[in-house]
Amino acid sequence: MKTAILGYGNIGSGVAQVLRMNADCVARRAGEPLEVKYVLDLREFPGDPMEKYVVHDLDIIVKDPEVKIVVETMGGTKPAYDFVKACLKAGKHVATSNKELVAKHGAELMQIAEEKHINFLFEASVGGGIPIIRPLNECITADEIDEITGILNGTTNFMLTEMAQEGMPYEEVLKQAQELGYAERNPEADVEGHDACRKISILASLVYGRQVDSEEVYTEGITELSDRDMAYAAAMGRTVKLLGTARKKNGEVYVMVSPVMIGQDHPLYSVNGVLNGILVNGGVIGDLMFYGAGAGKLPTASAVVADMVDAARNQQVTVMQRWSAEKLELGDWKKTEKQFFVRLSGNPENRLAEAEKAFGPCQVQKISGMEEFGVVTPVLSEADFEEAAARLEGVISRIRLA
Amino acid sequence: MKTAILGYGNIGSGVAQVLRMNADCVARRAGEPLEVKYVLDLREFPGDPMEKYVVHDLDIIVKDPEVKIVVETMGGTKPAYDFVKACLKAGKHVATSNKELVAKHGAELMQIAEEKHINFLFEASVGGGIPIIRPLNECITADEIDEITGILNGTTNFMLTEMAQEGMPYEEVLKQAQELGYAERNPEADVEGHDACRKISILASLVYGRQVDSEEVYTEGITELSDRDMAYAAAMGRTVKLLGTARKKNGEVYVMVSPVMIGQDHPLYSVNGVLNGILVNGGVIGDLMFYGAGAGKLPTASAVVADMVDAARNQQVTVMQRWSAEKLELGDWKKTEKQFFVRLSGNPENRLAEAEKAFGPCQVQKISGMEEFGVVTPVLSEADFEEAAARLEGVISRIRLA
Repeated sequence: MKTAILGYGNIGSGVAQVLRMNADCVARRAGEPLEVKYVLDLREFPGDPMEKYVVHDLDIIVKDPEVKIVVETMGGTKPAYDFVKACLKAGKHVATSNKELVAKHGAELMQIAEEKHINFLFEASVGGGIPIIRPLNECITADEIDEITGILNGTTNFMLTEMAQEGMPYEEVLKQAQELGYAERNPEADVEGHDACRKISILASLVYGRQVDSEEVYTEGITELSDRDMAYAAAMGRTVKLLGTARKKNGEVYVMVSPVMIGQDHPLYSVNGVLNGILVNGGVIGDLMFYGAGAGKLPTASAVVADMVDAARNQQVTVMQRWSAEKLELGDWKKTEKQFFVRLSGNPENRLAEAEKAFGPCQVQKISGMEEFGVVTPVLSEADFEEAAARLEGVISRIRLA
Repeated sequence: MKTAILGYGNIGSGVAQVLRMNADCVARRAGEPLEVKYVLDLREFPGDPMEKYVVHDLDIIVKDPEVKIVVETMGGTKPAYDFVKACLKAGKHVATSNKELVAKHGAELMQIAEEKHINFLFEASVGGGIPIIRPLNECITADEIDEITGILNGTTNFMLTEMAQEGMPYEEVLKQAQELGYAERNPEADVEGHDACRKISILASLVYGRQVDSEEVYTEGITELSDRDMAYAAAMGRTVKLLGTARKKNGEVYVMVSPVMIGQDHPLYSVNGVLNGILVNGGVIGDLMFYGAGAGKLPTASAVVADMVDAARNQQVTVMQRWSAEKLELGDWKKTEKQFFVRLSGNPENRLAEAEKAFGPCQVQKISGMEEFGVVTPVLSEADFEEAAARLEGVISRIRLA
């Protein structure tokens, strides 16, 4: 079976590599060998094993009836969206790692695939090599999902782990992540939480069956976190993680992304470094967690290849249950309730009464030698917390608890 | 589509319950409603919603061409093996939660299913509600698995968690587990590790493609563990878990079950209570972990129902890649290497030199007020450790490290 790869960057070349490395195993699983016939890229790749397959015109691929499966690993939505649509309309299965594309146009592309009785698959778009899309689609078919929460971005998880374990300040850890190639020169998509937001939006769309607009999801990144926040977390036996959460409560779906302080008994506590972890809670199934390499060339490429195998085995059957293009109206996140950790200037002897007047009974955390202290509030709605915190002077920072 | 349930105990009645609770969702996913036409059991169930479907003769089910999917939730191999074989030979898909059956006869039953172009599915046999069989079969198609290690038995994990967190002695914790219904009156299958052994044998057979004979797997239970072992583990920032492991090294597959001391950075460290966790390591994919309710009526039943849905959607296609009935010759587990924690009588001032002469340089762990101490050995093979420990007097206990 002939295939084509759109975009020969990190993941695209990884797909070609995995197809070469595991050709036998892939052929056995797919029922026949999967061969790359074209690689679409603006560049040439002299000396690369794929050198002679490089083309610069999508039409060659779209018009070649031999090509049954197309891999899209270009990233972004322009021109990925038009290219993928053209391939699907020509009856070619598409497997993509592009979360921006899936978050924005997933519903429409899945619908085209369904109409054509083919497949638009995107296991690699969330959680890299972790199987999460397919289990949600196939394995957890007998349950209603109450909540899905994940560490969905490896770059920020690496940074937070370094801050927690090495006590390094944010700026230094960002520089280190950039030097190691985990963070891009412009790290905004990672550190501001946009990447995590796209991924939780995809998972929420899949689980709740309607399009979640990622631009409507409240998103807070890690740029305001300091090594001092981490020191408080450690003193309380906790750590801070950037979590994306989608939760259904009283018929409303709440989706948000923010740093959250979690304790050692939280399943995501020990998900460290560039790893990702995704926690699923259902009425029947209870807690399920999926954990693994959330990014990286080969793990992500192997998820794309697993999708290609799936497409090859289901040539006339659309395996994904698509979500509706109709927008899911999200519940107001300010109504969600949780505890908050708050750092206040001064010392508890003078200021605890004031804090408790605002928030209610608090636990106090003091780190010796600092002209400040921390409190953990009772459970409050986001709106109530915000109002109470606004009345209080000397609020240095606040982090949600879970 | 008509179905039948063999064995209306805890899981069997859970399957009927999940089919009722989630009828719409199941019908949508399966493509048509799944209806229970027969329940096979020796007993009657007056007042039960399934009352009128109860039959006592398998032949009624085998000879009814309307029945397309049979659920086996009887447990044990007699008569489950004969019953399942008869159903498969009659062209009926079978979904089972029965690990003993799968561990012993999986290869043969999968082969019959393949010959008949139907499905023998067993997601619920390992890890209860955790999707692990299907991800191993479907998602991780592009990789060679180096190791699979899991907390596979909820009863013992509950007991070890209580011992670690509450400092309770083994006998008391066993009694508590029995009172809560987690442990059976005869707890041998759980506490001696046989249940975990069957499950790791199934996973190893699936991953390495040949029948692993569970009776050949070295299996050590938790009956020798004391609250004092737990206190040492805690003093070292570690805990003790009953782990099943299958590992491929230099072409040999090593499988074993035993208690293992693991640290806080180990992904299975925070898998507590009745939960299960399964860690998969592959060359391309890195570490993957699956975590969730490893037992319990509804989680396990929901895994069976997901298999029924899969069978309904793949009526002419065998989805599982079967393993060969040819026996996998296991590597000698005594050659595997690791560190050991050893408790010795006396005190380190007098006896450390002796211990280090036997094992090599050790870390020492002392708990005040005890006439004994602990050492952590360097990495040794099981054989070398055993030999060294035999030369040493006053060895109170030993636990492997990971």
